[in-house]
Amino acid sequence: MQKYGGTSVADPDRMREVADNVARTRRRGNAVAIVVSAMGKETDDLLAAADRVSKTQSGREMDMLVTAGERKAIALMSMALEEIGVPARSFTGSQAGFLTDTNHRNAKILEINPSRIVETLDAGIVPVIAGSQGVSTDRDVTFLGRGGSDTTAVALSKALGADICELYTDVSGVFSADPRVVASAEKMQTITFDELLEMTATGCPKPVMRSVEVAHSHGVQLHVRSAFTWEQGTYVVEQEQDMEQPIIRAVTHDVSESKITVTDVPDKPGVSATLFRALAKADVNVDMIVQNVSEQGRTDISFTVPTENLTLASSILEEGIVAGLGAKSFTVNDSIGRVSVIGAGMKSNPGVAATMFETMADSGINIEMISTSAIRISCVVSEDAVDAAVQALHRAFGLDAA
Amino acid sequence: MQKYGGTSVADPDRMREVADNVARTRRRGNAVAIVVSAMGKETDDLLAAADRVSKTQSGREMDMLVTAGERKAIALMSMALEEIGVPARSFTGSQAGFLTDTNHRNAKILEINPSRIVETLDAGIVPVIAGSQGVSTDRDVTFLGRGGSDTTAVALSKALGADICELYTDVSGVFSADPRVVASAEKMQTITFDELLEMTATGCPKPVMRSVEVAHSHGVQLHVRSAFTWEQGTYVVEQEQDMEQPIIRAVTHDVSESKITVTDVPDKPGVSATLFRALAKADVNVDMIVQNVSEQGRTDISFTVPTENLTLASSILEEGIVAGLGAKSFTVNDSIGRVSVIGAGMKSNPGVAATMFETMADSGINIEMISTSAIRISCVVSEDAVDAAVQALHRAFGLDAA
Repeated sequence: MQKYGGTSVADPDRMREVADNVARTRRRGNAVAIVVSAMGKETDDLLAAADRVSKTQSGREMDMLVTAGERKAIALMSMALEEIGVPARSFTGSQAGFLTDTNHRNAKILEINPSRIVETLDAGIVPVIAGSQGVSTDRDVTFLGRGGSDTTAVALSKALGADICELYTDVSGVFSADPRVVASAEKMQTITFDELLEMTATGCPKPVMRSVEVAHSHGVQLHVRSAFTWEQGTYVVEQEQDMEQPIIRAVTHDVSESKITVTDVPDKPGVSATLFRALAKADVNVDMIVQNVSEQGRTDISFTVPTENLTLASSILEEGIVAGLGAKSFTVNDSIGRVSVIGAGMKSNPGVAATMFETMADSGINIEMISTSAIRISCVVSEDAVDAAVQALHRAFGLDAA
Repeated sequence: MQKYGGTSVADPDRMREVADNVARTRRRGNAVAIVVSAMGKETDDLLAAADRVSKTQSGREMDMLVTAGERKAIALMSMALEEIGVPARSFTGSQAGFLTDTNHRNAKILEINPSRIVETLDAGIVPVIAGSQGVSTDRDVTFLGRGGSDTTAVALSKALGADICELYTDVSGVFSADPRVVASAEKMQTITFDELLEMTATGCPKPVMRSVEVAHSHGVQLHVRSAFTWEQGTYVVEQEQDMEQPIIRAVTHDVSESKITVTDVPDKPGVSATLFRALAKADVNVDMIVQNVSEQGRTDISFTVPTENLTLASSILEEGIVAGLGAKSFTVNDSIGRVSVIGAGMKSNPGVAATMFETMADSGINIEMISTSAIRISCVVSEDAVDAAVQALHRAFGLDAA
């Protein structure tokens, strides 16, 4: 299974390169199916067209609209393959057997019946499958959401029993930090699912977390690689083979979130529940949450939300939530960034947090919030300190190339 | 039933106007379903994209590609309707129940099972149906061909038992001649199916002949009208009510064809069959055919083909057909035009042909070929004489407005 993202199939030249790679894969004796995203900025263009026509954008109609993008891509990609003598046949999500729930814009796969894909592969033909789409139990066209092509590829890999699911993107693999920030960042040959999940959750751009979760739970082996250099990328594995892995594998960062602090909240049961239920109802995706130590029965609660949801979140807080909680007020800060260190090795190395905080202090960087998981420590810092923090941590944890 | 062509839904403003018209139709107490073509030049853009990717353009993949155009249009049109409070729901050809044969690019409708459309209408919701598409007996996406949206609308009108099928275009009806050539050309209030069929076959641009044939054979009443002025257009009727109709209803012209003459052909059985079978095999659409009077067992055969097929037709003739026939050679002329007079009244008025030929002679126009049907006479003339011929005939048959 190979999945090609939007930049990989953005124009005719790119499609020809992808076709050549599919041909190479077949020459090595592999049967291959491919999943294709909409070309380049096509999905954005379709969404912009909807904005020009209507503010009433029902999920059903939006899904009918955006799935036209992948449909165009699979037809053209199939023609590009046939042009170089590779038999190919395109399939929409529905034709490929993706049955989903009726949750438009962000549908979940309920079941895959890939009988047409199996027939096509058996006939020696390359199935070219539209990413991120399916048909609902109500027989309507559904979209799995932005980045859903990864999920399509992973789920279909499982259904077909594929040896590997190659996710072709515009980066050549998973790096120990963003190479634009840390010049010496190194591409990893392998990474564990747990580590990749933490990385995608904290700023590593691809693949989308949902697809990694699906791959992890179904034992689908992933290979994240480039459709531009075609070099070997990063394999995602269940467990590192090598016991001598470094404690920290990567430093990630994310400046797409903002911080909200609700001040002087009564510290009693149910307060947090009220606050975050109200935000969840409005589909505001709250990430880090930190509650200060209570003083005289009152406390502060800070949390991060995507900056694109900041206006919505603020209006919900203003509409009585803050007053209803008995809180004093709230402040927002959209100039923050999150810096995270990730590595399965930290489970058995208790000094990681201390090293991280010392490194930040030595660089004169103030830490505003902290959150941790078993294999990750994240710090919220001022946005203009993010690059310096990433560089210092990459060096401190020995990730700079020798 | 209302069908809106590509120019009628070319941009958001046009879609809003169409939505207003649908709302008006509903306010008058009518349940309405609409069929929508791809927006503006969308289909051309998709075909151009295919040309940039591949010369190998299988019918199956081309249909997958071009049907993306109507999919985009129906989703946006549904949103435009909902924006003004008209409940709407989009349906692809497949969802609307159009089952077709497997003849890609130009599929024929085998059966319509419009149960979802009926349910939608019953629920007081406007079904917005993608024109010119269906699903084949092989479960593949099919395209009914350029202009197939008219056919979709007519066939669905029949299946739903619609009172009328309104075909909205960028012209305000059917005219007695092209208003760009004859300033005094008049819009007809009614026209018979037979007359309209002859007109669409000889240069009247819309609606497509196939849809008129389907409407005729299934008794679907058509109303050809404008989506720009919204004025009343031309009703297509079975038989004129008024016995005092003029003999000739309209003068049409068409400069999209070229003439080929195969010279000095043996006049024996099978020659024409060989010639036209070879052209038919290559999908060259031969129109008028005229065979000269035989002299000493040899003759000339002239016929017209669409100018876009002229190169193909010529190469077929060169590849041995001319030699195989025992003919001398062939000549081509791409500077011709056809001028036709049409009217059901000519059946009982034998002087029409004479009047036509006299009018041409008086205008100093040489007639190169002649063909007739029961209600039409067509003459091929030099392309630069076409406008003068149309104007002279429009006047001679009393069609100029008083």
